[in-house]
Amino acid sequence: MTANNRPENDLTAAASPRNLRIAIAGLGTVGTGVLHLLETNRAIVAARAGCDIDVVAVSARERHKDRGVDISACAWEDDMTALAARDDVDVVVELVGGSDGPALALSRAALDGGKGFVTANKAMIAHHGMELAERAEATNAPMRFEAAVAGGIPVVKGLREGASANALAKVYGILNGTCNYVLSKMEATGADFDDTLEEAKKLGYAEADPTFDVEGIDAAHKLSILSAIAFGARIDFDAVHVTGISRVRAADIAQADALGFVIRLIAQADVEHADGSGVGDALLQRVRPCLVARGHPLAAIDGPTNAVVAEGNYSGRLLFQGAGAGDGPTASAVVADLIDIARAFRSGGGASREAEAPFSIPVAQLTPMRAAEPGNRMERTYLRFTVRDRPGVLAEITAAMRDADVSIESLIQQGRKRDGGEVLVAIATHEGPEANVRRALDLLEGSDSLTGEPLVLPILPN
Amino acid sequence: MTANNRPENDLTAAASPRNLRIAIAGLGTVGTGVLHLLETNRAIVAARAGCDIDVVAVSARERHKDRGVDISACAWEDDMTALAARDDVDVVVELVGGSDGPALALSRAALDGGKGFVTANKAMIAHHGMELAERAEATNAPMRFEAAVAGGIPVVKGLREGASANALAKVYGILNGTCNYVLSKMEATGADFDDTLEEAKKLGYAEADPTFDVEGIDAAHKLSILSAIAFGARIDFDAVHVTGISRVRAADIAQADALGFVIRLIAQADVEHADGSGVGDALLQRVRPCLVARGHPLAAIDGPTNAVVAEGNYSGRLLFQGAGAGDGPTASAVVADLIDIARAFRSGGGASREAEAPFSIPVAQLTPMRAAEPGNRMERTYLRFTVRDRPGVLAEITAAMRDADVSIESLIQQGRKRDGGEVLVAIATHEGPEANVRRALDLLEGSDSLTGEPLVLPILPN
Repeated sequence: MTANNRPENDLTAAASPRNLRIAIAGLGTVGTGVLHLLETNRAIVAARAGCDIDVVAVSARERHKDRGVDISACAWEDDMTALAARDDVDVVVELVGGSDGPALALSRAALDGGKGFVTANKAMIAHHGMELAERAEATNAPMRFEAAVAGGIPVVKGLREGASANALAKVYGILNGTCNYVLSKMEATGADFDDTLEEAKKLGYAEADPTFDVEGIDAAHKLSILSAIAFGARIDFDAVHVTGISRVRAADIAQADALGFVIRLIAQADVEHADGSGVGDALLQRVRPCLVARGHPLAAIDGPTNAVVAEGNYSGRLLFQGAGAGDGPTASAVVADLIDIARAFRSGGGASREAEAPFSIPVAQLTPMRAAEPGNRMERTYLRFTVRDRPGVLAEITAAMRDADVSIESLIQQGRKRDGGEVLVAIATHEGPEANVRRALDLLEGSDSLTGEPLVLPILPN
Repeated sequence: MTANNRPENDLTAAASPRNLRIAIAGLGTVGTGVLHLLETNRAIVAARAGCDIDVVAVSARERHKDRGVDISACAWEDDMTALAARDDVDVVVELVGGSDGPALALSRAALDGGKGFVTANKAMIAHHGMELAERAEATNAPMRFEAAVAGGIPVVKGLREGASANALAKVYGILNGTCNYVLSKMEATGADFDDTLEEAKKLGYAEADPTFDVEGIDAAHKLSILSAIAFGARIDFDAVHVTGISRVRAADIAQADALGFVIRLIAQADVEHADGSGVGDALLQRVRPCLVARGHPLAAIDGPTNAVVAEGNYSGRLLFQGAGAGDGPTASAVVADLIDIARAFRSGGGASREAEAPFSIPVAQLTPMRAAEPGNRMERTYLRFTVRDRPGVLAEITAAMRDADVSIESLIQQGRKRDGGEVLVAIATHEGPEANVRRALDLLEGSDSLTGEPLVLPILPN
């Protein structure tokens, strides 16, 4: 890596190839991964970018830490926001994390100064993506965030550009590697949630505090970003309905298996088109553990892999699959963004060129979609009750289903008693309005036949 | 669709949004699909392109044919090459097909005239892609061909841009929907090749003359294009080793199944890096029916679906999956290319902007890689012999294996006699040099124990 100390921003001369000069804030695993990649793949990156990509400045918490890469040729800034003020920097790469605080301050400063901007920060984009994109559009700064969704999988580009000719009916997928690791591991071993999560922590597949992952927040961040790109909607993270995986038991996975399903944490967004124009007016975003039929492409996704399905009205079903996290895959996405920016700089006469809108459509033209009511959809549902082992319990449950117009497709009462005489009843329903299931549960509310809150999981359509 | 008759090419005014004016040559299923898409998704396409995309002129064999779309507002050219000469056309879309002849003449004329150029023509790109890209670079014309590979799957973009930061070790996948339909159908029904192919013709999954598909030529066209993009190599279609699926029998699929595999036509390219720099110097491109272990993502690809796997040194394994053919998916890819071109025109000041090189790296900088020798690789192999039902045959075959240093992992001799006393022997080998298998077959050459030429299929590594 060589520093490049040309003083002024002379990108306007399109004909003369020049380096793209970047600054990196944050040298954790991803930041270090980016440095590694730029060093290892230097020739390839230069050939594809049309110029070298040079790291001219960095900022991180600890200056003198052995990261296995030489940063001695890079300028150092103690205050990361100062990276945005440097005249020798074309693009600021934010790899600090956190939705607010220093990361947000740096991002604003970079974009307001017209610098190119690349980030892997899903929480920040989910919460402040609209504001940041507006700043980018105001100063004509290129802004990219491929690494914020699904790690190394180029799914932001895939939807934003690859599927751009389509009205997308829905986008859904497996967006959290920790949850997918835990669920597919539970499936393979028969172990319960807590034990599997502990093991995942030991193996580095889960953070010490895994709340954001296992409660679905991380997947919700990513989903809200994908929704904006897929549907031309404003990001609306607060409208995502989120249920995590911590209530899924080994017994649920076993019942699902008996019914021909696996359980996966599915992030799904779809739009309601009131007028059939292809422009949606209501958006439903949900992160939920779902039963996925074997044979569905998402059922085969094991371990920390991510996958995204998009259904376009011309493309049909597209699937993008790969590593959803990790320093290498995330660095791959960050540098792909840098190469895109370098190509545009080179080919369009540098900063004089109009940058593409970060969400493909300018923020002012994105649709502020209202949040759709979840209860309106038709779904098949899996319900699991824990009940007392006494006569009449099944009759009580099935009567509630009948009275709420819920049609039962299959029912398994687990013969083996659990501790304390508790018995499991698992039901898969035919397709019907979600609201009916809710009504059936209301009818059973307070029944002393039930020993705990029922678990309700949707069955993903094929 | 409205015609737009502004006379001169006034794309240089970046600030004023303007329509992108296209001409379409060829109104078969794909051409008609593009017209449909542009009509149905007009609002979405305009929002993402930043301007309307208007079809101002068309050319096809029959002028007055009911295509279900209104082309009365479009100018008509009897001679398709005349489309390239029209001042009111910004981009020519070639959907005629054929590697030479009128399609090639039109493409040359469009690019030499500095028009944008979009094609779905894999045969033409495989044979003349380098020449056409050079013409595009000479006149600074944008040239795109997403639809030429894997239909609606944005895999050209995925490799060219999404995986651009990576040294790719190999790219492989299922690139021909007809073959995949036939093989997965044979698997599901137990029927033999000829019957299944006849059925595929009736259902529209195979052409009346399916030679190009079943003999692997179509997949080879696509593979040669993917290789160029993945490895920064010059296209070298003639170097692709091609074996089709016509020799695969129902019995092979059954044996593979017994061994834990399915059979798929796999197109695969990989490079040998002599110096470890990530820049390859020898390229091996092969299209072959392979045994694919259940559990491998490609084993689950059924019917006419396509899928491409790319393995990057940072991204890890990426998979792109979707519909590999059909009017809708192909139109989706064609219009995505048009939207890309429209964005660049709009944002970069129209034709004054330097267009990106069609293969991402200018043709002059692509590596002319030598064709690697296939015999050098280590592989597991499946061998199927048809033999006479008499003593000593197994001893003869296994002795040849031993003498050629081929290690047998499993062997199945099919007990049930086939017509004429013919017996099947299927062998899966341990990993070893391909050349040894070839040597074992040479040792058996001319043996009158064998009643037909052995079938040799590689086993795809996991």
